[in-house]
Amino acid sequence: MTVTDEFPGYVIAPDPKAPRLTRKVTGVDHDGRPSEISVVEERPLTIFLNGQEIVTAMTIGDYPEYLALGFLRNQGMLAADETVTGVDYDEDLETVVVRTEGQTNYEEKLKKKTRTSGCAVGTVFGDMMEGLERVALPDLKVKTSDLYRLASVINRTPSLYLEAGAIHGTVLCQGAEPLVYMEDVGRHNAVDKIAGWMFSESVSPGDKLLYTTGRLTSEMVIKTALMGIPALASRSGFTAWGVEIARDVGLTLIGRMRGKRFVCLSGEERLVRDTDPDSVPEENKKHRRKGADT
Amino acid sequence: MTVTDEFPGYVIAPDPKAPRLTRKVTGVDHDGRPSEISVVEERPLTIFLNGQEIVTAMTIGDYPEYLALGFLRNQGMLAADETVTGVDYDEDLETVVVRTEGQTNYEEKLKKKTRTSGCAVGTVFGDMMEGLERVALPDLKVKTSDLYRLASVINRTPSLYLEAGAIHGTVLCQGAEPLVYMEDVGRHNAVDKIAGWMFSESVSPGDKLLYTTGRLTSEMVIKTALMGIPALASRSGFTAWGVEIARDVGLTLIGRMRGKRFVCLSGEERLVRDTDPDSVPEENKKHRRKGADT
Repeated sequence: MTVTDEFPGYVIAPDPKAPRLTRKVTGVDHDGRPSEISVVEERPLTIFLNGQEIVTAMTIGDYPEYLALGFLRNQGMLAADETVTGVDYDEDLETVVVRTEGQTNYEEKLKKKTRTSGCAVGTVFGDMMEGLERVALPDLKVKTSDLYRLASVINRTPSLYLEAGAIHGTVLCQGAEPLVYMEDVGRHNAVDKIAGWMFSESVSPGDKLLYTTGRLTSEMVIKTALMGIPALASRSGFTAWGVEIARDVGLTLIGRMRGKRFVCLSGEERLVRDTDPDSVPEENKKHRRKGADT
Repeated sequence: MTVTDEFPGYVIAPDPKAPRLTRKVTGVDHDGRPSEISVVEERPLTIFLNGQEIVTAMTIGDYPEYLALGFLRNQGMLAADETVTGVDYDEDLETVVVRTEGQTNYEEKLKKKTRTSGCAVGTVFGDMMEGLERVALPDLKVKTSDLYRLASVINRTPSLYLEAGAIHGTVLCQGAEPLVYMEDVGRHNAVDKIAGWMFSESVSPGDKLLYTTGRLTSEMVIKTALMGIPALASRSGFTAWGVEIARDVGLTLIGRMRGKRFVCLSGEERLVRDTDPDSVPEENKKHRRKGADT
């Protein structure tokens, strides 16, 4: 667990100097000169729920226990009230086994399902959509002063992104404070690690906001809503279905945040405009994110 | 199939004006003014191989047949010599069924596997890595003049990215010509659609280069190598394992291409440096990609 001095609000901040997370690689640049660059690691991690192999995720490799718990939570495979008796990470085998007191509902369901289709992960999509019907998000006000401060602090926080690029970040925030900043190469691992931390620490989601560097796709919106978090903000753009779901469940959705600019496509009535956008400085070029696409 | 007049080399180019692929959504901007923006569509598509449900992909929805064929090819579920007897897309059911002459090896394997683990997609990773051992990529020379021209043409080609953002592109190229330019919201759908097109049209991969807007992760490198394409270039960065695999299989790997700049981390000996980098113009700001992160 890393807390940076400059940004004391963090419970967990990125650890860009951790030797396990990046590697120096030597290549050749456009001028034919040797070029040593820092690149992020990427490792397979196979997640088990009791005796059941669930998925192999590609991950940077930090917080494997949170990743496993959060993945299972976000996929609806592990209920909020499930008693977890153990989370065992084996670095050599690249596995995490999550153990629950009894067999989970999910395993019951899976047993039936595999007889017909054989695909565990394929069954999950419908379950996630079903789960949305039970979501009731609190009516959280979102101050634009908080949004601007969060974006500015997060962009300047030392991170693997600033060190090596090609990685995504997701940050759990409360008011004007970023609390937990997770990064990962895998598409949704960063948000799953946050979900795993919240589950482990019994953190209540109703007064939180999730900030992500990634796009606001249906999956991102669904995960945020299922986590019970009422607001989602991003530097990146939207998909139509992501917007539709956010409006259905009453999630505040803010995208294309760059300097003073943003677009709010859902939950506008919850925005508290307490800052003059023209007083917000442009982003420092160094901190503009690029190249983390995927 | 769309061929733009300005860029006659394309066999398939993006169709940014297709009404099915984007939607106008109205929100509110940072100044509280109504803001109508164009956002890309995102739809579930469930892929079947004969009687077997394989996966539900989130896709923009164009070329579903190519996506299904390419996905199955790239996952090693459909061999190169398999006889496909039908590819049936049902728009209402959001399904594609790929039918083969007999039961495929993959289904045989799956039948055994599901008895123990129940997960179809989880078994695939090992198969993909195994497949790499049989890969022998040809010794294709890559001219820097071609690289610079490709990047410039692709960035200026009218695309869903330029129209609505939040989408990825992958382009199959030959020499200085981009041939097939696919876009998608889903992580690897764009490259799978290219693989499906190549399979359908029996296109030989040995003299091709793949250009992508996304990161050069292990999965991207593995897919390119399994497709038999000897060179992969990107605007984005690398992961350590992506570099390692590229070096193992002898794939030429070029990343961080922006204006005159690039870094080559594998296959440098195949680069033909026939252009002075200082003669390459900087990118037009309008065409710099941002916000397609995920």
